[in-house]
Order: sequence, then C-alpha cells, then structure tokens
Amino acid sequence: MLFENNRRWAFFIPNTFTALNMACGFAAILHGFNNEFYKACMFIVLGAIFDSVDGRIARLTKTQSSFGEQFDSMSDLVSFGVSPAIVYYFRFLSDTGRLGMVAAFFFMLCGALRLARFNANIDKVKSDYFQGLPIPGGATATISLILVSLNFPEIQHYRFLTLGYLFFYAVLMISNIPFPSFKNSEWVRNHRKQVLMIIFIILASLFIYEEIMIPSIISFYVLASLIYFLTHRKKFAGIFQWKEEPEQEGT
Amino acid sequence: MLFENNRRWAFFIPNTFTALNMACGFAAILHGFNNEFYKACMFIVLGAIFDSVDGRIARLTKTQSSFGEQFDSMSDLVSFGVSPAIVYYFRFLSDTGRLGMVAAFFFMLCGALRLARFNANIDKVKSDYFQGLPIPGGATATISLILVSLNFPEIQHYRFLTLGYLFFYAVLMISNIPFPSFKNSEWVRNHRKQVLMIIFIILASLFIYEEIMIPSIISFYVLASLIYFLTHRKKFAGIFQWKEEPEQEGT
Repeated sequence: MLFENNRRWAFFIPNTFTALNMACGFAAILHGFNNEFYKACMFIVLGAIFDSVDGRIARLTKTQSSFGEQFDSMSDLVSFGVSPAIVYYFRFLSDTGRLGMVAAFFFMLCGALRLARFNANIDKVKSDYFQGLPIPGGATATISLILVSLNFPEIQHYRFLTLGYLFFYAVLMISNIPFPSFKNSEWVRNHRKQVLMIIFIILASLFIYEEIMIPSIISFYVLASLIYFLTHRKKFAGIFQWKEEPEQEGT
Repeated sequence: MLFENNRRWAFFIPNTFTALNMACGFAAILHGFNNEFYKACMFIVLGAIFDSVDGRIARLTKTQSSFGEQFDSMSDLVSFGVSPAIVYYFRFLSDTGRLGMVAAFFFMLCGALRLARFNANIDKVKSDYFQGLPIPGGATATISLILVSLNFPEIQHYRFLTLGYLFFYAVLMISNIPFPSFKNSEWVRNHRKQVLMIIFIILASLFIYEEIMIPSIISFYVLASLIYFLTHRKKFAGIFQWKEEPEQEGT
C-alpha cells in the first residue's frame, strides 16, 4: 500500500515538469505583450529545458503514461507553438496588419500539425531522424531572430526577412525533411566522454553569450541537416513512408 | 486512383474546420490584447461552432483519423484553454499582479489536463456522461462573465468574484463530476422533433440576445448537472473508475 502510494506520487514528478514548461510558455506570452522580449525569449528557453527533462524523468522513474505523453504535447503547443508565434508577432509583425496575423497563425498551426502528426505516428516511428524540424527547434529559431534583433533593431524594418523567416521555419516543421535525433544515436553511445564535453562547452557558451550562441546553434543544426539531406537524398528515400490514411474506415 | 484521390481530399475537410477553430482562438487572443472583448468572445463562440462541426463531418465522411483527433485537441487547447485564459486575464485580472497571472494559468493548465485525460482514456470511456466539465463548457463560462461585465462593468472591481469564478470552472474541468452528454442519449434519439425545436429556439435566442443567453445556458447546464450529481450520488459511484496508473511499467 505504501509502495503503491509512492508510485502514485512518482507519477506526479514528470507531470510537474510538464506543467512548469507550460507555465514558462504562459509567462513568455505575457512578457511578449509587455514588450519585454528578452525575458519572453528566456522563458521559452527555460520551457525547453523543463521539456527535455520531463520525458527523461518519466523513463528513469518508469512512470511513462499515455496521459503524460498527451499532457506533454499540450505544453509543447503552448510553449513552442502559441507563445513564440505571439512573441514574434509583437516583436516584428504587429504593424503589418492582417498579413502579420496570418503569418503568426501559420507558424502556430504548423506547430500543432507537427505535434499531431508526431502523436498519431508515435508507435510507428523508431528512427534516428525526426520527420521535419521538431517544434522546440522551430521555437528556438523564432526566438533567435528576436534575440538578434535586440542588438540589431534595424531587422524590424525588413518585412520580407521577418515574414519569410517565420514562414521558412513553419514549413520546415511540417516537411518530410529528416533532422537527426541524437537520442538513439550509436555515435553518441560510443563517445560518451566526448559528448559530455561538447554538452558542457555548449551549455557554458550559452550561459556566457546566449544572444549569439542560441542563433548560431539552431542555424548550424538546421543548415547542416538540410545540406546532409540534399546531398544524401537517396539514403532517405521513403524513410517516412507509412500509411497516413484514415484508420478507422467504416466504424 | 481517382477514388483514392477523392478520399485523400475528403480527409482535409474535417481538418480544415479544426484549423478554423484554432484560427478563431488566435483571433480571440489578439482581440483580447486590444481590449476588444466583445469580438474576442464572439471568436471563441465561433470556434466552438467549428469545433462541433469537425468531428461530425469526419464521422459522416468516414475520414476519422488519430491525426484528426490529436489535431482537434490541439485546436481545443488554443481556442478553449489558452485564449479564454488570456482574454479573461486582460478583462479582469491584469491589475491583480501575480495572483491574476497564476489564476489565468491555472485555468489554462486545467484545460490541458482535461484534454490530456480525455485523450488518454479515449478508448475506455463510452458513457452518457463526460468526466468533468468539457473544455468548451469552461471556455463558455469564462466568456459568459466577460459578456455580462460589458453591460455591468462594476463586476471588474469584485476581485473575489472574478478570481473565484475562474478557479471554480477550472476545478470543474478536472473534477470527476459527471456532466450529461447528449450525443448518445436515448431520450434525444426518441424525441428528434422536440430536440430540433429546442435547438432552433436556443440558436434563435442566442442570435437575438447572445449577451444574456450564453451566460444563462451555461449556468443552467452546470447548475442542473451539479444538483443532479449531488442528489444522485449513489447512481454515479465509480462510473469513472478505471486504471489511471502508468501503463507501460518496466518498458
């Protein structure tokens, strides 16, 4: 009975981190509305940190649940779909009229489609590659341009750049372009010490120069993935081919 | 082949309505920021109308899919969780400091928990009753008080009322209180003509006096459900008892 109760409590730990992720998304929205863009961006980064922790804790404590997975997607949508779209809108697009509204909504919509596709295929996909840019990547890309614009405010005047950038990352999320996942990578498993060193260097540089490092890292990841995909198209032919048709026909 | 293509296109119809629902939620958020509360509320109502259509169309055209279900939940979270919380915050709570932020976040969080629980139990629950107030009901309740406050602005000064009201409906969503669902109701099936008449009267009155009818209908539904639950507690004992423990222990 006591053990049973402990298990019930353990179940709360990962979901608490998921709720903290959502709280960061909500805080980012409110800061975006108050034109406090640096804080808004940092809340989204903090949300991403909580998000990377919850799944690991659930696996470690063996408290994974379909409830937890669903709740995690909901938080991801708020923190990495709704919140970046709104913060980006207030930073760059609030005086572009309906075009800006549509662009911000398009980003949010693509984030939701990305999450829905991931959840619907969760049992089918076991790969070293994500199908399309993961939504935290899209969120990181949007806040990157916001962070850069804090030092270079003239970016705000380049409508084509700000609209095109948002559109580009929205489309990357719903694309079939493979982005490498390091979770199950063999190279990572065989080079634990080097990986730990790289993670430490990245974290340290993030802590010192976040306004340069966040944009650099996401740009490098996306560009390297795109170049690798374009030069190895044959290798990737059909890796995301599964039946995406309606499932319950006739029921 | 042509038939196959038609089926693929048919698959888009319900998802288009789901996307329209999400667009309404986004429009409501932006109107809330601009203090256009009447428009914000009406966009949430419009979202609820799109939401009630998408599932029906998917069933009619036999294009249900797990992707569609997931995408529907994402839209529901934006339109009935995030958007009412933000609009309510700007109407009533923006000068209450952190307490107001926490209250608005709590509503959004409970909405997400409600949706996650529903999705996780989607195969288990086949009942004439919802487990807890459905999230569109919670959203309707929040916009009801906003609509009333447009005619009675003094409501804004009653902090206890506005905070307590939001908290009450947030808790109703994650509660185990049964709320009647009319979808599979036998009474509805046996009284089609009367039901059509009632729906017509409700829609007509909504159209004429939306600021009175929306608050009246949701209050009546919630109060009647609560009274029925309290007077028939024995009947409902254990109807939502299924294993909510972690599912994949040891994997």
